[in-house]
Amino acid sequence: MKLQFWYDFASTYSYLAAARIETLAELAGVTVEWRPFLLGPIFAAQGWKDSPFNLYPVKGEHMWRDLGRSCDELGLPLKRPGVFPRNSILAARVALVAAEEGWCPSFSRAVFHENFAQDRDIASPEVMGGIVEALGQPGAAVLARATSDEIKGRLRKVTEEAMKLGIFGAPSFTVGNELFWGNDRLEQALRWAAR
Amino acid sequence: MKLQFWYDFASTYSYLAAARIETLAELAGVTVEWRPFLLGPIFAAQGWKDSPFNLYPVKGEHMWRDLGRSCDELGLPLKRPGVFPRNSILAARVALVAAEEGWCPSFSRAVFHENFAQDRDIASPEVMGGIVEALGQPGAAVLARATSDEIKGRLRKVTEEAMKLGIFGAPSFTVGNELFWGNDRLEQALRWAAR
Repeated sequence: MKLQFWYDFASTYSYLAAARIETLAELAGVTVEWRPFLLGPIFAAQGWKDSPFNLYPVKGEHMWRDLGRSCDELGLPLKRPGVFPRNSILAARVALVAAEEGWCPSFSRAVFHENFAQDRDIASPEVMGGIVEALGQPGAAVLARATSDEIKGRLRKVTEEAMKLGIFGAPSFTVGNELFWGNDRLEQALRWAAR
Repeated sequence: MKLQFWYDFASTYSYLAAARIETLAELAGVTVEWRPFLLGPIFAAQGWKDSPFNLYPVKGEHMWRDLGRSCDELGLPLKRPGVFPRNSILAARVALVAAEEGWCPSFSRAVFHENFAQDRDIASPEVMGGIVEALGQPGAAVLARATSDEIKGRLRKVTEEAMKLGIFGAPSFTVGNELFWGNDRLEQALRWAAR
C-alpha cells in the first residue's frame, strides 16, 4: 500500500525523516508520496502562535540536544538555524510544483539541507531559485508558477486535507486513514503499509 | 554507566518503557535505577493543569491509537483506562518504599498493569495493598510507611530533582546530566550509557 509522507520544511524531525524514508521504503517495498504542507495553520488552530519548542523552552532545549544526538548517529550534518522556525511557505509552494514535475524528493532534501545543515533562509527566493537551478530546473519559471494563485490555493487545500486526517505535527505518515506521528514512527508506518 | 529511568504511573508511554527496559538494559550491560516521580507539578510549571493529551484532543486521539498499535507489536495488553490520567501520588510513594527495599521494578510493572491493562484505580489504597501483598510484602505496613511525612517529602524532592535535570515528560532517561525523553529514546539512552 502507498504511504503518504507529510512534512513541513521548518520541522526539525521532518529533516530526519526526509533523509531516511527512501531507503527504508525501498527495503519495505512501499511507495511513498511526498506531501509538503504547512504546520503553522494547524498550530494556530491549537492556539499556538509559535513552535511548541519555543513556547516550552525546556522541551525546546531537549529537542535541539536530541536532534544533535540523532544526527550524529545517522551521520547527518546539523547546524542549528539562526531563525527557528523558518518561514516555509515559499519552499512548500515550490515543492508542490516539484511534485507535479517529479523532482519533489530531491528538492525537499535540498531544502532541508539548506535550513538545517547550512543555516540559510529558505524563505528567500534567491535560495529557492538556487536549489531549483542546481536540480537542472528553470529557477525563474518555477518560482513564478510557485507563487501563482493556483499553487497558493493548492497549498491551502493540502493543509486542510492534513488537518482533516487528524495531523497535528510533522513529520506524519498516513496509510489510508491510519495516522502515524513523528520520525520515530516511520518504521512502524512502513510495516503497516507493507502488510 | 548507570541509567536512571524516570517514570510516572499515570503516563502511558512509561508503561511501555517499564515493560521493555530490563531486557534491553541487560543486553546492553547497563544498570538501571528506577526513579518514580510526579509529572503533575512539572506540567503545572508549564501552565498545564491536565495532561497535554487531554488539553490537545487531536494529539490525545493519536496517542491512544499509537499506544494500541505499539502494544500490539510488543504483545502487551492494553485496556484504555476509564480515567486518564489517574492520580499516581500514592503509587509513587509506595514505589519509593519499594525502592528502599529492592522490589521497585516488579511493583512498578504491576502498577502499570493495573492501570493500563486492567483499568483499575491505582489511587486506591486497596488496589495498592493488593499489589504489595501479591509481591509477598506486608500491605498495611508498607502503606503506612508510604504515607509517612518522610516518604511524602522524599517524593517532593525527587520531583524537584527531575525538574532540575530538565525533565518535562515521562518516561525520561538520564545518564549523568544527559537527558533522553520518551520511550522511543530508550535504546539510544542505553547506547549512551554503555559507551
